[in-house]
Amino acid sequence: MTMDPTSFVARHFGWHFAEGVATITLDRPERKNPLTFESYAELRDTFRDLVYTSQVKAVVLTGAGGNFSSGGDVHEIIGPLTEMAMPELLAFTRMTGDLVKAMRACPQPIVAAIDGICVGAGAIMAMASDLRLATPAARTAFLFTRVGLAGCDMGACAILPRIIGQGRAADLLYTGRMMSAEEGERWGFHNRLVPADALLNEAQALARSIATGPSFAHGITKTQLNTEWAVSIETAIEMEAQAQAICMATRDFRRAFEAFADKRTPEFEGN
Amino acid sequence: MTMDPTSFVARHFGWHFAEGVATITLDRPERKNPLTFESYAELRDTFRDLVYTSQVKAVVLTGAGGNFSSGGDVHEIIGPLTEMAMPELLAFTRMTGDLVKAMRACPQPIVAAIDGICVGAGAIMAMASDLRLATPAARTAFLFTRVGLAGCDMGACAILPRIIGQGRAADLLYTGRMMSAEEGERWGFHNRLVPADALLNEAQALARSIATGPSFAHGITKTQLNTEWAVSIETAIEMEAQAQAICMATRDFRRAFEAFADKRTPEFEGN
Amino acid sequence: MTMDPTSFVARHFGWHFAEGVATITLDRPERKNPLTFESYAELRDTFRDLVYTSQVKAVVLTGAGGNFSSGGDVHEIIGPLTEMAMPELLAFTRMTGDLVKAMRACPQPIVAAIDGICVGAGAIMAMASDLRLATPAARTAFLFTRVGLAGCDMGACAILPRIIGQGRAADLLYTGRMMSAEEGERWGFHNRLVPADALLNEAQALARSIATGPSFAHGITKTQLNTEWAVSIETAIEMEAQAQAICMATRDFRRAFEAFADKRTPEFEGN
Repeated sequence: MTMDPTSFVARHFGWHFAEGVATITLDRPERKNPLTFESYAELRDTFRDLVYTSQVKAVVLTGAGGNFSSGGDVHEIIGPLTEMAMPELLAFTRMTGDLVKAMRACPQPIVAAIDGICVGAGAIMAMASDLRLATPAARTAFLFTRVGLAGCDMGACAILPRIIGQGRAADLLYTGRMMSAEEGERWGFHNRLVPADALLNEAQALARSIATGPSFAHGITKTQLNTEWAVSIETAIEMEAQAQAICMATRDFRRAFEAFADKRTPEFEGN
Repeated sequence: MTMDPTSFVARHFGWHFAEGVATITLDRPERKNPLTFESYAELRDTFRDLVYTSQVKAVVLTGAGGNFSSGGDVHEIIGPLTEMAMPELLAFTRMTGDLVKAMRACPQPIVAAIDGICVGAGAIMAMASDLRLATPAARTAFLFTRVGLAGCDMGACAILPRIIGQGRAADLLYTGRMMSAEEGERWGFHNRLVPADALLNEAQALARSIATGPSFAHGITKTQLNTEWAVSIETAIEMEAQAQAICMATRDFRRAFEAFADKRTPEFEGN
Repeated sequence: MTMDPTSFVARHFGWHFAEGVATITLDRPERKNPLTFESYAELRDTFRDLVYTSQVKAVVLTGAGGNFSSGGDVHEIIGPLTEMAMPELLAFTRMTGDLVKAMRACPQPIVAAIDGICVGAGAIMAMASDLRLATPAARTAFLFTRVGLAGCDMGACAILPRIIGQGRAADLLYTGRMMSAEEGERWGFHNRLVPADALLNEAQALARSIATGPSFAHGITKTQLNTEWAVSIETAIEMEAQAQAICMATRDFRRAFEAFADKRTPEFEGN
């Protein structure tokens, strides 16, 4: 499906589009922005649509009212799950996994802007983003163990260790404890801490700076960060030889060279 | 083999079992707790038996007398190895590797409690644990190069880089140098530093807090941390969809929801 | 090809050999040591030759005049690339990738000594080294995005995340921004920071200390750090059982034991 980012209206989250940057806001602030069956599905579909929406060049993902997300709603999701048979359970866990797959598969870099509570499926969405800015009040927990589940939710046992290391990931996944903002920055989960009143502006400024870059090439960077995950070094180098040769055939590469020769800043067009 | 953790007595290390937590103590303190052919084998067999010992829900691994372990004993192991033919050498390196495989394959999270010297095969056992608490005096070295060997011992070239990063692992493996406790904490090897007189208590408290959690789900977390090591992101997400669906079919998941609804702390039973 | 390290003269970089350590110096300081088609090829060929040059036991890679390398020269490389057809582009990206493959495939540990500018292909050569010492003035950038390209150059999307974590690597690869020396040390890219006037001496001292170690075993360590990149834990442990059994059959292993028994420092010969 192609979407028009200037007119798109989401039913279960806020959508704002300006200067190539789409801002998605989880916005049930009275419940700290929980996810429901419907919001999971709409987020998944939206990230899937972004594959075909070249006007959107970067995404900011945030939450309303001083929190990122409280994750799957206990009454709207966990309760019903306890009543389901296995086929329905697997359909649910595959659907939530599809959200992470869709976030990784869209070519736009995703900047998570994290304040306050960032737990459960909320922590997963932060993890599945490309970059993470947070406030000093951000508190992140992969708390699946607290509800009797395993830490392996939506890719966490694979992705989290690659961000913060196997030992620190094990700590968070076995204990379900809160990671403070300071720990998150020190461990490489958060790229940077910013004051709460600057968070959205900083995240959008970062996203805009990415959006004004060579978007096609950024999409290839994202593809390669994903697809070189579990291949040999030699295979990865051959994959990059091919991927970068593709980028060298783009007009943006020529634009950069011509701008350099003219001592100008290049203007990229994503093609 | 099934073991009875309340009556089990090991010949080559101390064994203590209480409140779901087994504490294994390397206890030849006069030699800083070296490993011998016999202790390697008994440790391997014990971790293998733990797969079938559901009363044990977490393990603490520590050393007696202010040190963790000095690794393979020079006179009892290294001397004999220099006399062996290749089939015997490979039988030995496979046996030591089997210890790491057994530590990773048992479903119980393993908390290493590390004071003083933690070198050679001792450093490997710390590395192969799930979580590591250490004292400020802990000194850890993968010193295989010092005895003329390669850094690739019992999985170190695969596992250590995933804990502390490829560059820091290369430093430790090529030079065989000591990693200080402070470096270990900063690099993500040690999860936390605690005073020596609190070490065992803190490690057992952490293990007990894990033991009171959903043990079946913890075992799945451990399985997934192991098995998602070298698969694609998409495969990992599908693996987690299946693994988490299994956990959603457990009674512990229902117990957590019912406790939440009743505003109680859940009591997990590991099933 | 076998080379004689004592008489070898390179056309496009400096070569110095002493005490088992080869020092390669990128030396067009007036342009901050850029790479050209010819220097790429000669570096690739030299690292390939090192596989058969057992007198060289470790390598130092550095730059002249206070900078490491400015990467691919804009006029000598980027300009011509914008005129090339796809087969030529792929031939180029494969050739640069072959340099990284050659750096990883030679058995000698490579110590990068980094001062000042370390960008583009220069940052890649630093990344492809085994160990990295840097001065407080070192500034490292994977700035491919600045010239309209993707971050996936010469293995960066696979190797950089394993050194500094997936989140920090994404930051550097999407934004092309400078990583300061302090960030590099904190993130595990640089093993240590040293003053500029001590850099070369410290790097050569580190390389010499490696060169006086068991060189054959060091080569196996490097092989295993490379080849265990994307295999399961169980496979890695079996690979190490075999690799370490090979090392236990070397004379260096016996030399270490005999020196220990005699309370001497072992003298390794790399066999």
